[in-house]
Amino acid sequence: MANFGGHAIPGSFFLLYGFWLTVKHILQHFWRTKQSKGREIMPPVFKRIEYIEGGFLIFASFVGIMVEQFVVDGPHAHLYNTETNSWVKLMNWQHSTMYLFFGISGIALVVSTASELVPAGVDRLALSVALFVEGFLFYFHVHSRPPLDAHIHSLLLVAVFGGSASTMLEVFIRDNIVLELLRSCLFFLQGSWFYQIGFVLYPPSGPKWDLELHNNIMFVTMCFCWHIAMALLLVTCISSVILFTTKRFSGRGRDIEIGMRHTSNGTSSQKALLEASDEE
Amino acid sequence: MANFGGHAIPGSFFLLYGFWLTVKHILQHFWRTKQSKGREIMPPVFKRIEYIEGGFLIFASFVGIMVEQFVVDGPHAHLYNTETNSWVKLMNWQHSTMYLFFGISGIALVVSTASELVPAGVDRLALSVALFVEGFLFYFHVHSRPPLDAHIHSLLLVAVFGGSASTMLEVFIRDNIVLELLRSCLFFLQGSWFYQIGFVLYPPSGPKWDLELHNNIMFVTMCFCWHIAMALLLVTCISSVILFTTKRFSGRGRDIEIGMRHTSNGTSSQKALLEASDEE
Amino acid sequence: MANFGGHAIPGSFFLLYGFWLTVKHILQHFWRTKQSKGREIMPPVFKRIEYIEGGFLIFASFVGIMVEQFVVDGPHAHLYNTETNSWVKLMNWQHSTMYLFFGISGIALVVSTASELVPAGVDRLALSVALFVEGFLFYFHVHSRPPLDAHIHSLLLVAVFGGSASTMLEVFIRDNIVLELLRSCLFFLQGSWFYQIGFVLYPPSGPKWDLELHNNIMFVTMCFCWHIAMALLLVTCISSVILFTTKRFSGRGRDIEIGMRHTSNGTSSQKALLEASDEE
Amino acid sequence: MANFGGHAIPGSFFLLYGFWLTVKHILQHFWRTKQSKGREIMPPVFKRIEYIEGGFLIFASFVGIMVEQFVVDGPHAHLYNTETNSWVKLMNWQHSTMYLFFGISGIALVVSTASELVPAGVDRLALSVALFVEGFLFYFHVHSRPPLDAHIHSLLLVAVFGGSASTMLEVFIRDNIVLELLRSCLFFLQGSWFYQIGFVLYPPSGPKWDLELHNNIMFVTMCFCWHIAMALLLVTCISSVILFTTKRFSGRGRDIEIGMRHTSNGTSSQKALLEASDEE
Repeated sequence: MANFGGHAIPGSFFLLYGFWLTVKHILQHFWRTKQSKGREIMPPVFKRIEYIEGGFLIFASFVGIMVEQFVVDGPHAHLYNTETNSWVKLMNWQHSTMYLFFGISGIALVVSTASELVPAGVDRLALSVALFVEGFLFYFHVHSRPPLDAHIHSLLLVAVFGGSASTMLEVFIRDNIVLELLRSCLFFLQGSWFYQIGFVLYPPSGPKWDLELHNNIMFVTMCFCWHIAMALLLVTCISSVILFTTKRFSGRGRDIEIGMRHTSNGTSSQKALLEASDEE
Repeated sequence: MANFGGHAIPGSFFLLYGFWLTVKHILQHFWRTKQSKGREIMPPVFKRIEYIEGGFLIFASFVGIMVEQFVVDGPHAHLYNTETNSWVKLMNWQHSTMYLFFGISGIALVVSTASELVPAGVDRLALSVALFVEGFLFYFHVHSRPPLDAHIHSLLLVAVFGGSASTMLEVFIRDNIVLELLRSCLFFLQGSWFYQIGFVLYPPSGPKWDLELHNNIMFVTMCFCWHIAMALLLVTCISSVILFTTKRFSGRGRDIEIGMRHTSNGTSSQKALLEASDEE
Repeated sequence: MANFGGHAIPGSFFLLYGFWLTVKHILQHFWRTKQSKGREIMPPVFKRIEYIEGGFLIFASFVGIMVEQFVVDGPHAHLYNTETNSWVKLMNWQHSTMYLFFGISGIALVVSTASELVPAGVDRLALSVALFVEGFLFYFHVHSRPPLDAHIHSLLLVAVFGGSASTMLEVFIRDNIVLELLRSCLFFLQGSWFYQIGFVLYPPSGPKWDLELHNNIMFVTMCFCWHIAMALLLVTCISSVILFTTKRFSGRGRDIEIGMRHTSNGTSSQKALLEASDEE
Repeated sequence: MANFGGHAIPGSFFLLYGFWLTVKHILQHFWRTKQSKGREIMPPVFKRIEYIEGGFLIFASFVGIMVEQFVVDGPHAHLYNTETNSWVKLMNWQHSTMYLFFGISGIALVVSTASELVPAGVDRLALSVALFVEGFLFYFHVHSRPPLDAHIHSLLLVAVFGGSASTMLEVFIRDNIVLELLRSCLFFLQGSWFYQIGFVLYPPSGPKWDLELHNNIMFVTMCFCWHIAMALLLVTCISSVILFTTKRFSGRGRDIEIGMRHTSNGTSSQKALLEASDEE
């Protein structure tokens, strides 16, 4: 979809997803740090959040595939035209393939939340593969385009492959809030960069950009760094707001809880002694 | 062996090996999760499975080397022809070298299963080296070929080097089911992609592919992603079938076993107290 | 700032920062190894050191941005000149962007020292991103320059990206003195190499270098290795001096402290027995 | 030193060093696995081995630098000829630089063995840097040479950078026998490949190789894999011989030792009980 809208839609999707991930992971992190070591069972609300996220990913990619296929000038599920002996609308097919893998990562998230049998980390692996496939297809996308067009798309790859690598790391390093927020950050970066691509290649208003000018490439490179700074700022602000709101609201409930734990612990004195010696 | 058969044979081998690995690792994973922490001695059946796998790898690579060497138009173990001052059938020699390293990885598997002295991880290292050598030789294989031919072979490298890297990781991160299934997945991918190469470069029926057309390259890139999706699907289905079958069959035996463990643990009460304090 | 001074200023900054990091990390390391396992609360002097470092980073990058913007031939905060339809002084803007990210890493350091809520590792992540952005902008900086100029700048990237990677590792591997000194070392390398670039491209005295001569490139490559050796030597010397000085000065104070600990530990005998069994 | 001898000397050095490392690490591994968990103090013989290795590295690199500098057609410590305005014998200077870093790694080994203050891993870091510098200089070495010459040198880089990466890993993953033997293996590979380069570029007897022929490049690539197989075989054979010899010789001594440990352990019964509960 080589127009402004075709870049604004995935851009909005990734910005929204980055926002969702930031909120989710900050809530999970707050819950983890609040808990004492002995009680590590996730409350059911987190399960429900994962189901919603997975379901949304599946739904969004289904809609994405349908739109790419059955839009007016789409391939309508035809891959090869035997009359003209040529492939039909490969660009739309490639976009459908990208959506397909985000759908698969949604399925992986739902299944791994629902069943204890699915090993931990499968959802992250699926998301990492989805980002890898997106970057992989984009990499061969940019072939033989004007310099600025090729450059602005290859900068996107920094966000995409960076996200794929950091998500892959999460398969092994679980529940690390820095990694999780880095992932949110890279989704924000990807989202805002999609918008930037739209504004540069298909400006909704104003003059067209010169796609050959070296100075434009230099500006766009620097602009990418500004988007990084913006993404870092966004994640920081959202995290802080969530964290302070949650702290205030959970304050009263926690006091009661602590009181209850004191009572239940008071009975066993030898156990406490042994615990103390272990912790030293 | 530049024909359809020459790509179908290694393709079938890798598909079969991917299937074998999936079944093996799911069974091992099921056994690991079923066990209580104190009893980590592998039952002898797993040792036997490793011997069979190692023996099969050694046998298959021996046959592979023999066929490459003594096929009608093969080098018949001659490396250099002093009359014409030229190398004899370097392609067959390169394939023999690849087989050799899979044979070495088979030997490493047998030896590390048989002896306690061989450090853990040697079998994975040998397999990683075998995949690295395969990719290394293929990388210099594709020099000066038509674009589509070079591209379709270099896509194979994604599966080969990916497999090599993930297997190398297993040297350090042992018994991680996600990594093990990722490896199976990459073998499936490699196997099915060998078939794809055969179908594209030496189509058994139908018209030949235009090796210069850019659209063909774009389709093939996307097709590789479909093979990834297929490999993920295959591993998921096989794993699920194995897991549910094993659960049903092992259900009765486990109940008896748990009963026995309860009895044997009941005698020592102070020990249990100390254990509890350690685990907290 | 394409002159000798424009390379000497960041060079001095990085040399100073490398020196500061070496001293800081050696002191922290000495303190860590001196402590018994049970008492891992940082003394407040280390917090103050972090605040000073963060504050200095913020101040230095603010000054850097101001200088780059409001220097006589600077852009004076104008990005695009609508009259000539061209970007204004993109080089200065790029340098400002680099400073901005070092400022962000300073803020991250201050905030993560001040608040317990900020997860450990955020300061290192911010520093890693700052180095990545520096390298990223330099990478596209060197386009279409004479060979020696491009080569000498791309050698800088080895130090910059090496520093970014090793700092990223520190997000996961905390308090590893080898990694921390490696980082100091790479800052020294970066600093001294900035000076070297200044001396080669804008020699303050003597003849100009031939920017096309292959032998000059060969010498510069080797010279970079000598800078590595020098950086290693500097870190070793500074570390040794600090370590021996601290040892001498802290000797008397420690003896008293150990005496106090002996007294306080002597009361609980059963506890000591349990500890001994756990440590075995 | 562009002749057969100039490649045979470093080749022999690396083969010898690979042999030494294999023997050392197998002995250390045997000693580690033999020990019970409580007694992890290295016997003094291992310290002496490290001193010998460090001293040898320092001595060999000193000799190497002297030979490179003061050989008949060497630079005799002159770097720049102000009369002809050109660099003096940069090749010899580059080789001296490589030796310098192996000397530094020798010093690091001696110092880190002698003093408890030097953090663990510094010796591996120095060796990793030495290999990195070697590869770094070689990488810019091969510029504008005939294809076969460039190719055969760039294959060397696989062994050099592989060794650098695996040694860097050892900074974090200590006492992992698989990594240690991988390092030995890569030194063997480097050594034997130096010989191969000598035989191909400066054949002591027989006809010269055609440096432009593509088939020669293909053979050399495959030949590199054979060297990998040979290095694996060498490390396996040496390890097995050392392991079986040590087992036989240490058999009698161990029996006595175990007897002694039984006696000394027999006194404390409660301690044993506590130990048992911890290990479960």
